[in-house]
Amino acid sequence: MHMLINVNRADKRPLQVQLYDSIRELIISGALKAGKQLPSSRSLSEQLGIARNTVTLAYERLSVEDYIAARPKTGIFVNEIPDTTFLVERPDEVSQARCVHLKKKHVSSGRALEAWSDRRTRPQFDFAVGRPHAKSFPASFWQRSAAHFLAHSRGLQTEYGDPRGLDTLRKAVADHLGAARGIDADPDQVMITSGVQGALNVLARLFLDGSDQSVAVENPCYQGAAFLFRSYGAHLYPIELDDRGLIVSQLGGFSGNLVYVTPSHQFPTGCTLSHDRRLQLLDWAYQTGSYVIEDDYDSDFRYDGPPLTALAGLDRREHVIYLGTFSKSIGAGIRVGYAVLPPHLLDQARSVKTLLDIGAPWLEQAIVADFLNKGAFLQHLRGIRRMYMGARDALIESIEQFFPGGALLGRECGMHVMWTLPPYLPAADEMQNLALNCGVGLYPLQRAGAHEYGSLPRYRDRSLVIGYAALSEAEIRTAIARLATVIGKRAS
Amino acid sequence: MHMLINVNRADKRPLQVQLYDSIRELIISGALKAGKQLPSSRSLSEQLGIARNTVTLAYERLSVEDYIAARPKTGIFVNEIPDTTFLVERPDEVSQARCVHLKKKHVSSGRALEAWSDRRTRPQFDFAVGRPHAKSFPASFWQRSAAHFLAHSRGLQTEYGDPRGLDTLRKAVADHLGAARGIDADPDQVMITSGVQGALNVLARLFLDGSDQSVAVENPCYQGAAFLFRSYGAHLYPIELDDRGLIVSQLGGFSGNLVYVTPSHQFPTGCTLSHDRRLQLLDWAYQTGSYVIEDDYDSDFRYDGPPLTALAGLDRREHVIYLGTFSKSIGAGIRVGYAVLPPHLLDQARSVKTLLDIGAPWLEQAIVADFLNKGAFLQHLRGIRRMYMGARDALIESIEQFFPGGALLGRECGMHVMWTLPPYLPAADEMQNLALNCGVGLYPLQRAGAHEYGSLPRYRDRSLVIGYAALSEAEIRTAIARLATVIGKRAS
Repeated sequence: MHMLINVNRADKRPLQVQLYDSIRELIISGALKAGKQLPSSRSLSEQLGIARNTVTLAYERLSVEDYIAARPKTGIFVNEIPDTTFLVERPDEVSQARCVHLKKKHVSSGRALEAWSDRRTRPQFDFAVGRPHAKSFPASFWQRSAAHFLAHSRGLQTEYGDPRGLDTLRKAVADHLGAARGIDADPDQVMITSGVQGALNVLARLFLDGSDQSVAVENPCYQGAAFLFRSYGAHLYPIELDDRGLIVSQLGGFSGNLVYVTPSHQFPTGCTLSHDRRLQLLDWAYQTGSYVIEDDYDSDFRYDGPPLTALAGLDRREHVIYLGTFSKSIGAGIRVGYAVLPPHLLDQARSVKTLLDIGAPWLEQAIVADFLNKGAFLQHLRGIRRMYMGARDALIESIEQFFPGGALLGRECGMHVMWTLPPYLPAADEMQNLALNCGVGLYPLQRAGAHEYGSLPRYRDRSLVIGYAALSEAEIRTAIARLATVIGKRAS
Repeated sequence: MHMLINVNRADKRPLQVQLYDSIRELIISGALKAGKQLPSSRSLSEQLGIARNTVTLAYERLSVEDYIAARPKTGIFVNEIPDTTFLVERPDEVSQARCVHLKKKHVSSGRALEAWSDRRTRPQFDFAVGRPHAKSFPASFWQRSAAHFLAHSRGLQTEYGDPRGLDTLRKAVADHLGAARGIDADPDQVMITSGVQGALNVLARLFLDGSDQSVAVENPCYQGAAFLFRSYGAHLYPIELDDRGLIVSQLGGFSGNLVYVTPSHQFPTGCTLSHDRRLQLLDWAYQTGSYVIEDDYDSDFRYDGPPLTALAGLDRREHVIYLGTFSKSIGAGIRVGYAVLPPHLLDQARSVKTLLDIGAPWLEQAIVADFLNKGAFLQHLRGIRRMYMGARDALIESIEQFFPGGALLGRECGMHVMWTLPPYLPAADEMQNLALNCGVGLYPLQRAGAHEYGSLPRYRDRSLVIGYAALSEAEIRTAIARLATVIGKRAS
């Protein structure tokens, strides 16, 4: 007997899998009916020109799965298939039901979705926010360090690590924060996370239980935090900003116990929370028994004057949770961030973290710790700080030269400024389109990972968030000059 | 004038930070009162024997933070500090309030906590579950591949990647699953996660909203899943097992729409869900509009006969979500797992994943993809399968030799067996203690990442989960012989 079976050596699947699939399909479709005899493995292997063992393996699997059965001294036969009706495609009466239980109300799109852009469709000069310069990555240190760790401690690749993160990295982060940010933290208080976003999830799972809780956020604020809190069922309570940062007095009307802030370099407006406001905010937290989440994402890049002491450095009563990241200073692709937690939260945070991801990958942690401990990180920071300061100056100069009359906010530190457009320029969305047509990527707030609440936005319509770190000074000057040409043409 | 300030070159903190901290402390403590004049930067630098610029920087920072102010042509003076009362430690009337908002009821400890053990306190012969052999890690491939990627695409280290995972890895996983597990998945359906645990969080966030939902689980089951579902507010509905795996008919009384199973090698009992039960389970899912989460954590290691087709390979109507991991086949330290999702869930899953961690680290993903695409993974699997089969055989032989009369379940595949103790041996907890005394790590269910529900447990008291992959055959034989000596001594 012959069967309508083809195997194909060009197909990537192993021959035995192809054979198994073909026969199974024939049985399910009814082409091979129950009781029908199959060719012997020898005969089928000759017919198809394949090894007999290949056929035997396919037959074994079909037999284990009850599609066929061997009768001693007689041959191999197709079985009666138990209840196969649903294996055949048919109109699906319950197909709608399966979506009912999706948690749609809690799932938002957000900054996260904006964080990644496909390199193939990226504009030539892209001022996307939050991206370091590709050439800044310390690749040769990484190579040496990876080779070293893989040669000497590869056993650690096969094991689960401490869910709170690698000991050496937690200690290195604590040391760094003590020197750089005035934060006196024990390594035990440091938890390594998948960037700031991973840390925010630990906190959301600690504090938000889906009941009617509120979280105070800056307005405008970082989408990744705001949308995350919303996705855990929290209500947001947006607080306005002025030139000294968050207007803390507005917390008077807030009944929740959690506030999320970016005091070093407010995202996206770039303002710095003043020292007296910091004290005010801490006082509010102490009086109300609240927690302050301090996201210090950008603090490694300060160009003009020393940074203010972090809230976590001022806090004496365990009300501040400090978040930081190496996404800006080393690269987002390594996914290494951290939280510094008050001692009374450590046990619970550890449980939450373990249930979340059982910890971060070992190798990148080992390398980052090595990078910090050898002093290479500080040297690296000095280098890229110079580089980014040059980029920032080129950006400010070019914009002020070609488009005078607007405002460039948040220039003292970080990797982006917020450009409030002068009145003679079109609105932010149109600016984005015009720029895109000449190969320049410029982004309004909502396309740059920021969100502004309220029906009377101050920034949304006429501001652009301009990340300058990934471009060279020459690229920046070229891009802004191009933009000026396009806008000029349009005006004329 | 002289100030009581010391700087210390042995201290790791930069001198300017030490100086800033000392002066700030003096002001806060009241030792330096408002209006008091500070020494000039030149005089202080001479007094302390440090660079003048160091003093200037510390003064600048104190000034930015309003602790001090320079009066032109007069000097530098201590400011009135606004509302400093809370900067001084005092009895904290609201200290209790701050804990009120912790989400205690949802936070459980669990398997996750057991996944990691400190290497320093580990028994000499440790039969902990889920750990591959340290020597199995393909370190030289990893080194070569890391060096290659860091030299040629280091720009990807500085960027956010696709939150669903690296294109090349998603394609490689889809190819592998087609050949190895009969799953016909488009790379678009594959999402790279932080192990199975990371995937479970994506699903929990998709399906569980904190209302009274139920999730059916095997009994006993994997803690990491059960405790996670509980932590998202779900009720668990444990389903009993027999020798064909999950007793699907018990789902008749279940009102939820989500079931979590480990059909290839049930955790911890090791049984395999039979083919007819697989069809029954799919039929239940189709009839009720439910989802089946198939955790195939151990399927790469099958020693006796071909594996059954995965539920996801049998499913024709998008009711199965398939989870896999490289934690067992390569190493848990790389934190790479994956989910295969039905097409109708992709958009929402992507949003959830983005909010969760914005994606996995780039380098490990690139290397794993390379490992799969070059055929090195299959070769690696063949090697460690042989190794683990040897370890398994040594374990079974030793136990049957020294402790006849028990049962060793789940030996056909995976990296662990469940040993149901013969009646003459003490209970599981006592066995653990006896073993520990002779340097052998043996773990009852609850210490091995498993949990059994119900007041009349079948396994909890008299079973041990024995992971054998991390030990050599010789180590296994030595360990079991030692145990026999200790138990013999005790009996006599």
